[in-house]
Amino acid sequence: MSYPHSKTLMTLYTAKICPFAQRAVWALKEAKAEHATEYIDLKNKPSWYSLVNPLLQVPVLRMPDGQFLYESLLVARFVADKYPESGLMPSDPLARYNVDYFIERVGGLLLKPTFEIARAPSEERVEKANEAVKKNLVEINTMLLERDSKNTGGNKGTYVLGSQFTLAEICTLTFLSRLELVFSLCNLELNEEMASKLGVDLSRFFEWRNAVFARPAYIESAPTKDLMLTFFAPMMNL
Amino acid sequence: MSYPHSKTLMTLYTAKICPFAQRAVWALKEAKAEHATEYIDLKNKPSWYSLVNPLLQVPVLRMPDGQFLYESLLVARFVADKYPESGLMPSDPLARYNVDYFIERVGGLLLKPTFEIARAPSEERVEKANEAVKKNLVEINTMLLERDSKNTGGNKGTYVLGSQFTLAEICTLTFLSRLELVFSLCNLELNEEMASKLGVDLSRFFEWRNAVFARPAYIESAPTKDLMLTFFAPMMNL
Repeated sequence: MSYPHSKTLMTLYTAKICPFAQRAVWALKEAKAEHATEYIDLKNKPSWYSLVNPLLQVPVLRMPDGQFLYESLLVARFVADKYPESGLMPSDPLARYNVDYFIERVGGLLLKPTFEIARAPSEERVEKANEAVKKNLVEINTMLLERDSKNTGGNKGTYVLGSQFTLAEICTLTFLSRLELVFSLCNLELNEEMASKLGVDLSRFFEWRNAVFARPAYIESAPTKDLMLTFFAPMMNL
Repeated sequence: MSYPHSKTLMTLYTAKICPFAQRAVWALKEAKAEHATEYIDLKNKPSWYSLVNPLLQVPVLRMPDGQFLYESLLVARFVADKYPESGLMPSDPLARYNVDYFIERVGGLLLKPTFEIARAPSEERVEKANEAVKKNLVEINTMLLERDSKNTGGNKGTYVLGSQFTLAEICTLTFLSRLELVFSLCNLELNEEMASKLGVDLSRFFEWRNAVFARPAYIESAPTKDLMLTFFAPMMNL
């Protein structure tokens, strides 16, 4: 059995719906890394895909020499290391740690509530959503303000490392569009008005979100709302 | 309230028993990184420790300017980045990925069975231990052989990256001494004779283990058998 791949370029195996795979797509786009793409239908995986990944997960990045790279965080990190001019990882060791630590803490704060809300009994979903805003998003807002206090001088800016866009954004914010979709399915709009009603200030969080979600590479890598609906609506019995 | 720390050096907060903390200690020693050490009694934590880590875990590395670094893997990675001459992380992006991926896969293959065996009902412990040898250790042995086939020329050697000792060793093998202790509490010696009785070949695994465990920085960072006993014997009702 053979499988499709580029003979000369890196080949990315991905799926639009998957927030983990989107990390790899987005990182490659930000780094302007030339590569081929194969889309995998996760509900109907091609039989050859077991040759690419015995675990059948996306993303996988195939090197032109045939080595496969697994695990979205490690693939994104590889892209950042291979294209240092992208600035996706800073070169200073302490700044690198700060990116790593932000990813470690914040990724789960966005991914976990998405599924907790989606899987909650319908009458409890709005409550779970309000809880997530008050707890998880406030925590992220606080972490961003703490980073701001350390990003001084020429390094001031909207991102986790101030003016430098890094993996800290790519490896956390792909989970947010899924969370926002789940909120909307609860008839909640995740915005400053909602936060204000709950008595919390998420202005730094929204400033960050809006700047990142406006990046062309994010927009190109993101699933449509319709596609996300096909995933979450059945889970929520909608 | 104040807390003990060096004003000029990095300060490591650690505990000999903890395999996660040992990653940080070992990495600092391999990198010959000058630092101060504060030992935390995990069964009787000093009240000031909440100022160092609200989660009360070890290790924590404090920078001279007061920043705290959490999460053993990220601390070890920081040490490798800060002391590139240590070679604890290679500079080539694909080699870095290979270290990361080995850690991701193998750490759990050693840590998980340690606690599964320790917590099993006593009559099932030996069975669980045999299973772990046949499944987890064989998998590691296979991964090492696969790496060998890629480590060619001047890069041949005992370690995951051949001749280069890296975080691939530090961030996986601190779990092995705990696993070996748990085996010994089941009256099993984890060695080639045991593997042979089970019909599996772990010679590459033992070659790796023996070379790594002979390193002075490993030996200095490791807990004594007696200390490990005070942790595992009560868990196993011994």
